[in-house]
Amino acid sequence: MSVLVVGSIGLDTVKTPVAEHADLLGGSASYAAVSASFFSSVNLVGIVGEDFPKPHVDFFDSRKIDLCGLQIVPGKTFRWSGEYHTDLNTRSTRSIEFNVFEHFTPTLPANYSGTQYVLLANIAPSLQSHVLDQMTQPRFVIADTMDLWINIAKDDLLALLKRVDMLILNDGEARQLTGENSLIKAGKEIRKLGPKYVAIKKGEHGCLLFGENEFFSCGAFPLEDIHDPTGAGDTFAGGLAGYLASLNHTEVTFQTLRKAVVYGSVLASYNVEAFSLERMRSLTAADIEHRFNTLLAASHFGETH
Amino acid sequence: MSVLVVGSIGLDTVKTPVAEHADLLGGSASYAAVSASFFSSVNLVGIVGEDFPKPHVDFFDSRKIDLCGLQIVPGKTFRWSGEYHTDLNTRSTRSIEFNVFEHFTPTLPANYSGTQYVLLANIAPSLQSHVLDQMTQPRFVIADTMDLWINIAKDDLLALLKRVDMLILNDGEARQLTGENSLIKAGKEIRKLGPKYVAIKKGEHGCLLFGENEFFSCGAFPLEDIHDPTGAGDTFAGGLAGYLASLNHTEVTFQTLRKAVVYGSVLASYNVEAFSLERMRSLTAADIEHRFNTLLAASHFGETH
Repeated sequence: MSVLVVGSIGLDTVKTPVAEHADLLGGSASYAAVSASFFSSVNLVGIVGEDFPKPHVDFFDSRKIDLCGLQIVPGKTFRWSGEYHTDLNTRSTRSIEFNVFEHFTPTLPANYSGTQYVLLANIAPSLQSHVLDQMTQPRFVIADTMDLWINIAKDDLLALLKRVDMLILNDGEARQLTGENSLIKAGKEIRKLGPKYVAIKKGEHGCLLFGENEFFSCGAFPLEDIHDPTGAGDTFAGGLAGYLASLNHTEVTFQTLRKAVVYGSVLASYNVEAFSLERMRSLTAADIEHRFNTLLAASHFGETH
Repeated sequence: MSVLVVGSIGLDTVKTPVAEHADLLGGSASYAAVSASFFSSVNLVGIVGEDFPKPHVDFFDSRKIDLCGLQIVPGKTFRWSGEYHTDLNTRSTRSIEFNVFEHFTPTLPANYSGTQYVLLANIAPSLQSHVLDQMTQPRFVIADTMDLWINIAKDDLLALLKRVDMLILNDGEARQLTGENSLIKAGKEIRKLGPKYVAIKKGEHGCLLFGENEFFSCGAFPLEDIHDPTGAGDTFAGGLAGYLASLNHTEVTFQTLRKAVVYGSVLASYNVEAFSLERMRSLTAADIEHRFNTLLAASHFGETH
């Protein structure tokens, strides 16, 4: 089965303590779509300007990502510039230019509306809802979000949450959304807002997954070096959604989501090893299985009864 | 088999955002010995003053902890006072009175020197070494430490590390000891200092265990409320050591240590539910197995090959 991915597509300028690169392929939908493409076919919905480099389009195409939903319009592509601090755990946004993204209304091609797996990657919750309005039979809908929308569009986000099966957000955002300091409480509180499942990303500390009376704690892959954390969360969400779509189960279960979270973590662990999506260009299915098995060994301590 | 536990025994005054209690049973050896006692017999080595309340001695005794190595001397018991801040993740020491601890030289009773499992709970590394000097055939030696000793007694600590099988420390201390920001790098670096195994405690994020080309990531028990984090690390170390001693294997393996880390985490998860060691008074073997199985379920996502 296919997964529909909607989100931002942009050109990023990223500075870390050791390097700086300009005009990199970026945006939540770029990371999520490429990550998902390692598991399933992908229908991409997004917008870029006429300045968007052709090689980036070719890269999507090489990953067999369907581009009927990619609008290329007059004007400039969305741009983001950010800087990571010493430990790569915190970053500052240096500038944002919305450009063509400012008047983006995601209108789905007719053949996309029946896509059964939907990943609403990080964009304004009103746009995420607008996409969902056009879906005829979504089987499993995942939304990602960020602190910005909790700050400036909380009502839109709360309205969206009633319509999605799963929310993905990071630890700070989970605390911000609920006012709970305990992530365990926060995960449970967010489920009350609508999503049956909640994944709280904790960066180097892994990820917590909450279901109805079910809980999964996934350790992060033990990386020694991170080169660029940009897009780690989007890559996680894409891998998770792509894995689910690849199974085409009649119902997504908690047990399936455990594996999906691990695959998402594996994809993210590779992505942070290089700037932009560079590591994804050479990634293989064997690489993915290798780290999946490493995480399996790293979490094992007994037999379940 | 028995485990020998040496460390501090004290009276704590603890303030959290919701409560304050004075003259509580505390100290690294108190927490570690009681925790270990749920798995094996314990030989306790420590010192208190004549003001040490008899009920605390009776509590140790009720846990079948051997007290031949407990020195009760003229003077006042070691006292510590600390305050936890809003999220309970940071604390300030308000006062320390070393009292009888200032001139403590741990001399082992003759029947202790052959104990095969040794937990050098958190005290000055010179005292930890002094205890080790008196052991005739230690099979597995675990040391705990803290930031204070890395700051003021690093040479003593480095000398000790060459003689122990395992070091337990928290994430901040691992970074401080190695100068590495990555905990994965830090764990590997510490192994080069001597210990075959290193456990890095991460509080609410669980624990990382490093061996030779082996790695285990243990998630924390999903607690919603923490009442007093004091002694969590000591309780972790005690449960870990007690579990190892209970097996009496000819050799401690990485697979055994995985389970030991989980049992340590389980004991710590109970201990932080109440002030001092109060939760330990009613804890049962069934409680321990219950949370062990919960952690097993919370970490499971596939079969190891």
